[in-house]
Amino acid sequence: MKQNRLNRVLEYMAQEKLPQILVTSTEAVYYLTGLWITPGERMLVLKVSPEGCALYGNRLFALEGLTGDLPLIEYDDTDDPVALLADGLKDGPVGIDKNWHSHFAIRLMQKKRSLELRLGSGPVDTARMYKDEEEMNAMRASSRLNDRVVDWLPETLKTGDTELGVGRRYLERGAELGAQGGSFDPLVCFGANCAEPHHGTDNTELRPGSAVILDLGFTLNHAASDMTRTVYFGEPDDEFKRVYDIVKAANAAGRAAVRPGVPVADVDRAARKVIEDAGYGPNFLHRTGHGIGIEVHEPPDISRSSSAVCRPGMTFSVEPGVYLPGRFGVRVEDLVAVTEDGCETLNQLSRELKIIRP
Amino acid sequence: MKQNRLNRVLEYMAQEKLPQILVTSTEAVYYLTGLWITPGERMLVLKVSPEGCALYGNRLFALEGLTGDLPLIEYDDTDDPVALLADGLKDGPVGIDKNWHSHFAIRLMQKKRSLELRLGSGPVDTARMYKDEEEMNAMRASSRLNDRVVDWLPETLKTGDTELGVGRRYLERGAELGAQGGSFDPLVCFGANCAEPHHGTDNTELRPGSAVILDLGFTLNHAASDMTRTVYFGEPDDEFKRVYDIVKAANAAGRAAVRPGVPVADVDRAARKVIEDAGYGPNFLHRTGHGIGIEVHEPPDISRSSSAVCRPGMTFSVEPGVYLPGRFGVRVEDLVAVTEDGCETLNQLSRELKIIRP
Repeated sequence: MKQNRLNRVLEYMAQEKLPQILVTSTEAVYYLTGLWITPGERMLVLKVSPEGCALYGNRLFALEGLTGDLPLIEYDDTDDPVALLADGLKDGPVGIDKNWHSHFAIRLMQKKRSLELRLGSGPVDTARMYKDEEEMNAMRASSRLNDRVVDWLPETLKTGDTELGVGRRYLERGAELGAQGGSFDPLVCFGANCAEPHHGTDNTELRPGSAVILDLGFTLNHAASDMTRTVYFGEPDDEFKRVYDIVKAANAAGRAAVRPGVPVADVDRAARKVIEDAGYGPNFLHRTGHGIGIEVHEPPDISRSSSAVCRPGMTFSVEPGVYLPGRFGVRVEDLVAVTEDGCETLNQLSRELKIIRP
Repeated sequence: MKQNRLNRVLEYMAQEKLPQILVTSTEAVYYLTGLWITPGERMLVLKVSPEGCALYGNRLFALEGLTGDLPLIEYDDTDDPVALLADGLKDGPVGIDKNWHSHFAIRLMQKKRSLELRLGSGPVDTARMYKDEEEMNAMRASSRLNDRVVDWLPETLKTGDTELGVGRRYLERGAELGAQGGSFDPLVCFGANCAEPHHGTDNTELRPGSAVILDLGFTLNHAASDMTRTVYFGEPDDEFKRVYDIVKAANAAGRAAVRPGVPVADVDRAARKVIEDAGYGPNFLHRTGHGIGIEVHEPPDISRSSSAVCRPGMTFSVEPGVYLPGRFGVRVEDLVAVTEDGCETLNQLSRELKIIRP
């Protein structure tokens, strides 16, 4: 167990009056144990309580000898792991990990009616918002790798490339350089597709005279990166260049607002104001950013409705955009980390408009 | 809505005494509506009841105009979709999709205490076991594509290839030919890695004198394929050739046992018997197969403990293997479809041992 992390989780549990929680996601179990276990359809539970922790896993996970002092309760495919788990729980409230498959939760409820199921992801999610030095170093390394490949990628663009093909090229180059994989499916948009923030990368072909959005991230040592650069393939017109400068300025304004004590809603406001003042407010269609860490989307939201406040160790994206339906879109995204007295931008790659001549 | 599929689901609901179910997985919603919606963290629910169905989706899913007669209830990021859903449900039992995120189920329970949550995946899972003609055609096309690429792939093997690299080569070729992607992460094993059925494909390099397991599948038009061929890179010794023939015969025996009315446990037994009779029973470490369709793993298990019986329209894998720790492993896998009077093998690729000279 990572004792410092566990201690913080136990504190947050006490604050939420949760006497026991079931940690079940691969990422949350990794956060507390350092073990990366992908259970598939089988049950994986790290029970956490002030009286002690225990890990429930299928024998096929081959965990024996890997858990150190942490008690390991193994089961076979012929056992009922939910019954085993029910035996190990105290009556009363039990916090359930938010994304645990409902069939486990429903069967647990049916096995042991004295349990009171509650949402129980808060303590680990909150702890994970504040990265320790080990995590911060992994986040930096992941973004450095991302910088390197996103710097290279636009130079490879050529007429006839497909969005999916460019995404694969990114992943291949990252794999050669040691990435575990993408932290999400590469999001590559050409031309008018850039105007849809949720465009699904497809076989659209690149033609001269197209904006190109590259929204990309790797996983490296279980830390996610995530960056967006918008480049132009061909000769951009004045409106594209103007919108690009506005979005770049909004990105800079958002990052400049980040320091301890500032509500994340103010980070959203700072970025949004630049775009609103330029007259494109209605074309900025989404929140300004999201927390990131082991997973590419983690709490908190960086949005007007978020109540979170910047504190040292938080890492999140700042990714304003302007979308002009049927024409083009621009998004510029970086990751930031809140420091003791301000903000460190994890991405070093230039935000100057890159123009690729076909 | 796909009316024939819905009618079958409603029948199975009546048998299970479920007056209403919440269908929430992307695949199950696709099965009933033809709409492929990936909700991410947001709520997606297709409510199914004899009184009528309704689809609950975030406005960002952009479903307006796509649902035809099916009532669409849209919500925004500022709404509480669980409260909306609670309003639309009758008191009493409600079936919950097995993999719905627990936080939705727990909040639904808390919002409406008059609901009684039960497992509710059975009706759709059962309907999906029996493919209609549209699905069967998609399954055939996906396996044909898989045949083509797995036929080509061994010819590309060369000394120094990595397992991960061969997997990527497979995916790239498939993408060029129109695959949506892999139906699972490519499983490529070299040499002694072949002896671990759960080996994680890694950067092991190919050396002459190695068995090579290629366990691969694509998704094409939302139908999964899945096939394994074991080839030899270099000159196989007599034991490898003997084990290969045994596994090939076990695969053939398993497929030959498939016809309507036969318990799937007997399919497992038929394949297993060939391996046991040859003295390698303890080296066949897993079930003989699994159902497949929109997803690569679907009910039923093809194992001794399964109570399922072959019926027309079922599609599943037959994949016996023999694993000799520290030395090599052999697995030969095909997909079959139960027909009115027997079995159709969806893979056409030869099962003769392919020997690649380095």
